[in-house]
Amino acid sequence: MGDCVFCRIVKGEIPCVKIWEDENTIAFLDVSPASVKGGHTLVLPKQHFELITDVPDEILTDVTRTIKKITKVLLKEAEGVNVLQNNKDAAGQFVKHVHFHLIPRYKNDGIIIEKWKPKKYGKGEMENIAERLKKIID
Amino acid sequence: MGDCVFCRIVKGEIPCVKIWEDENTIAFLDVSPASVKGGHTLVLPKQHFELITDVPDEILTDVTRTIKKITKVLLKEAEGVNVLQNNKDAAGQFVKHVHFHLIPRYKNDGIIIEKWKPKKYGKGEMENIAERLKKIID
Repeated sequence: MGDCVFCRIVKGEIPCVKIWEDENTIAFLDVSPASVKGGHTLVLPKQHFELITDVPDEILTDVTRTIKKITKVLLKEAEGVNVLQNNKDAAGQFVKHVHFHLIPRYKNDGIIIEKWKPKKYGKGEMENIAERLKKIID
Repeated sequence: MGDCVFCRIVKGEIPCVKIWEDENTIAFLDVSPASVKGGHTLVLPKQHFELITDVPDEILTDVTRTIKKITKVLLKEAEGVNVLQNNKDAAGQFVKHVHFHLIPRYKNDGIIIEKWKPKKYGKGEMENIAERLKKIID
């Protein structure tokens, strides 16, 4: 995809600060990090796919291996790591090339992940949702 | 792990509303969902591991396949999906059995994922962090 910023990074047309690269995956520092400390990293397949559901299993396996490798490195310094991947605008996906945020975390770092008031299901509501979803699993 | 709530769910000692189960993985509805709509689901390996870095590659591959499968299902109804996995207390990991949140999203649903003011790196700071991390990659 000619206009995709991550495709252009993969091709070397836009510079990045790379942490890791192998046949199918690349990991580089996010230029707008949640925290400068620790190294907020993006992990992605080199090939362009929009959503996690679009990535072929064998490539997704490679991406997962890189996520594991980089999380392990980040955890040598940070107190925790969030792995976050957003699908579609409504979920906050800005770049339409599937990518995983690896966010190094420290106690009281002020970064908010998962800010929501837990909701309660009504009687039978969970079961209804589950039945509905199970019917449309491919 | 006898006292792990997710191990007890896997064993059937604590009930859950299941969406999917196969040899190595299970997916069930989160009892404290970000949103009742859409089916906030947890995906995890049946075997107990604490962090993503602890999960053997072959099991993590199966977990990833289930994440992909369930995200695909959720996206048939929702406008977006966040995939979120927290490692250690500082990252908000409450249950110490590795799990992935699959959070169905809708425009203006009030759920906040990724709330941070993007920071700026000083001159040479990104390169320094990258060099440090690259030296400690296993």
